[in-house]
Amino acid sequence: MSTFTSTTKQINVKDQAKLAQQASKKLALLSEKEKNEALLTIADILEKESEYILKENQKDLDNGEDKGFSEALMDRLRLTEKRVKEFADGLREVVELHDPVGEILSDWTLDNGLKVEQVRVPLGVIGMIYEARPNVTVDATGLALKSGNAIVLKGGSNAIHSNSAIVSVIHKALATTKIPETAVQFIASTDREAASQLFTMKEHIDVLIPRGGGALIKTVVENATVPVLETGVGNCHVYVDQFADVEKALRIMENAKTDRPAVCNAAETFIFHEAWLLKNAGKVQELFEKHGIEVHGDEKAAELLPDVIPANEKDWAEEYLSLAVAVKVVSSVEEAVSHIERYGTKHSEAIVTENAENAVTFLNSVDAAAVYHNASTRFTDGSALGFGAEIGISTQKLHARGPMGLPALTTIKYRMTGDGQIR
Amino acid sequence: MSTFTSTTKQINVKDQAKLAQQASKKLALLSEKEKNEALLTIADILEKESEYILKENQKDLDNGEDKGFSEALMDRLRLTEKRVKEFADGLREVVELHDPVGEILSDWTLDNGLKVEQVRVPLGVIGMIYEARPNVTVDATGLALKSGNAIVLKGGSNAIHSNSAIVSVIHKALATTKIPETAVQFIASTDREAASQLFTMKEHIDVLIPRGGGALIKTVVENATVPVLETGVGNCHVYVDQFADVEKALRIMENAKTDRPAVCNAAETFIFHEAWLLKNAGKVQELFEKHGIEVHGDEKAAELLPDVIPANEKDWAEEYLSLAVAVKVVSSVEEAVSHIERYGTKHSEAIVTENAENAVTFLNSVDAAAVYHNASTRFTDGSALGFGAEIGISTQKLHARGPMGLPALTTIKYRMTGDGQIR
Repeated sequence: MSTFTSTTKQINVKDQAKLAQQASKKLALLSEKEKNEALLTIADILEKESEYILKENQKDLDNGEDKGFSEALMDRLRLTEKRVKEFADGLREVVELHDPVGEILSDWTLDNGLKVEQVRVPLGVIGMIYEARPNVTVDATGLALKSGNAIVLKGGSNAIHSNSAIVSVIHKALATTKIPETAVQFIASTDREAASQLFTMKEHIDVLIPRGGGALIKTVVENATVPVLETGVGNCHVYVDQFADVEKALRIMENAKTDRPAVCNAAETFIFHEAWLLKNAGKVQELFEKHGIEVHGDEKAAELLPDVIPANEKDWAEEYLSLAVAVKVVSSVEEAVSHIERYGTKHSEAIVTENAENAVTFLNSVDAAAVYHNASTRFTDGSALGFGAEIGISTQKLHARGPMGLPALTTIKYRMTGDGQIR
Repeated sequence: MSTFTSTTKQINVKDQAKLAQQASKKLALLSEKEKNEALLTIADILEKESEYILKENQKDLDNGEDKGFSEALMDRLRLTEKRVKEFADGLREVVELHDPVGEILSDWTLDNGLKVEQVRVPLGVIGMIYEARPNVTVDATGLALKSGNAIVLKGGSNAIHSNSAIVSVIHKALATTKIPETAVQFIASTDREAASQLFTMKEHIDVLIPRGGGALIKTVVENATVPVLETGVGNCHVYVDQFADVEKALRIMENAKTDRPAVCNAAETFIFHEAWLLKNAGKVQELFEKHGIEVHGDEKAAELLPDVIPANEKDWAEEYLSLAVAVKVVSSVEEAVSHIERYGTKHSEAIVTENAENAVTFLNSVDAAAVYHNASTRFTDGSALGFGAEIGISTQKLHARGPMGLPALTTIKYRMTGDGQIR
């Protein structure tokens, strides 16, 4: 569309947050049907405007080319007609999800007749701070609006043209719906100051969700006074116990490490019980060779396996996100648990064993969002668990832990109905 | 007991947090019975050691006398045999509460046979930062231990001897139970540095709960990187609508303002619909006179009521916690909602009306932990709502909102049981 112009002009960040907050008040009162209609409209218009989005995306790609971005980063940035169609389909999937808003979680009546209801309500305004992937712009907006929340988006500067174009299209779509356009705010500045202003805007923003690398998340957590939903970093372990079934162990290791090495629920360290590894080193070695896995191991690992690079402290804490793995050899399940306690990020941790007692010890003692017995860590994922789309995977303990679906974007309100009751 | 000595010697705050964390691992695995036995032991020993506690409390009272504390503050500090007995009885009540740990909130099986359970687990280590009342030492410890959490206590310097004595008694009691003594850590330093060290100890503390005045809470929220459960400040409003029943309105106003003016769920502002006040100013005046209520009002309030002190911006935001009230006159429910949006603290907000539409507008539009139709704001309280003891009243939206009982001190864990499932 040649006449299409950006609606994401730069205004004061605080004013944007205020506009979002005002919009959130209206949005909170809309019906599920009204919100769904708006999401379907956005989906349709995104597809129609795909040419404009791709044209703007090309600017980011050209810029990336100039700056010599890695192919992995270029791939995260790159949009195609198919990807834009996937954005639209993603929104159509969100339409199918159950709207948690208005759900009465419990209700009771006090002896004096006061009726108490605990009802789900939207959080209000979500601040989303993210890096290179333009798909977050669409996914996060879809989940926020469906759960009755306004959203303030601060994407990475590398994707500024793509994100700006996507939000302009969303605004155009919203203009014909019951959701105010101002419910979706995009911070067009690439200035770091703009993001850090969001950190302390407690008056206008109810929660910040950082999506991206560890450094981004750390910056937000350390500097924000707005409550943060911490997502992401996964230094996940697979512990192969003395009593592990060989076939299950190999299958789970292979899947957890190689299915998608770059995601947060992929395994980063294998912990072997010494006795098991002694018997099965050959098969483990075959697996490593089959996938060209680079092994950073402790001394015992080096004794039992060939080509082991000596592991240092950094390796135990590393989220490789590639076909590299740290290997630790232990002599008990307790030693495995201690290692995970020290280096894990409380994301997803697995034990492979046929021994029920060791399984229980592991599942009860390991402190993580998800603990597995005889299964791959890769299941820590909203769609794998049947939640539908997710806003991220929480590695914190408050509010939401593990994959966060729509309910994580809501809070509750006590609604009391009386007839003059006093205390 | 003349031989009783304090066990709360001063060690490094970080080491204390680490000890609490180690203890939390054991505590998390105890049964409800074992935890209850420990709480009952603490209750018994507290009663037995009441003489020692009162002797130590006297040091704080003497110090308060020297420093010229107000009678209100002295009263918060003062312990008596009866109060110590109440501490013990409070613990016995916690024993009766349902233990949330281990509860399976939901469970399902994926098509591939992987069994998924969402199970409640303790948060881990709770950091409690509080002011003058020594009862928080006992109450918070009881709730933390019952929910399987270790606790690091940082009380106010004014109550240092009382708190230290109480914790020494708790330690003595725990020595004979399954709960490690190290599960209860008391920071004996009165140094502000000691508290602020807790703010950033993310590695060892899972949540901070500040209990006290607005300044304390603000300091914690602004400086902590550990997640905070924000409690307390309540600038609560009662809106008397045009269609309010006179008798209900007067009763609710009286209860909300005068029953216990110093608590957070007491009303601080009355908002009157102009038409209602015009008809009922005399009765409102009678109520104010009956209780000697000091009125800070806007211009219209001053026209309709005698002895109105002109209200300024500060009055609208003020938590008087005394027999003073701000009075705002409006001409619609929407204007009342706007005022609350601007000055409220999202705690407890009430409308008095016989008009169903206005009630719905108010209940849906006002963003607060508790919204009331025709009832006093005083019901926002764990024991009034039937939760038993509460750790505080959350005014934030994440994790827990409103009165926080034992479940607020837990998180969830996904427990997956498979037979070799991969993705």
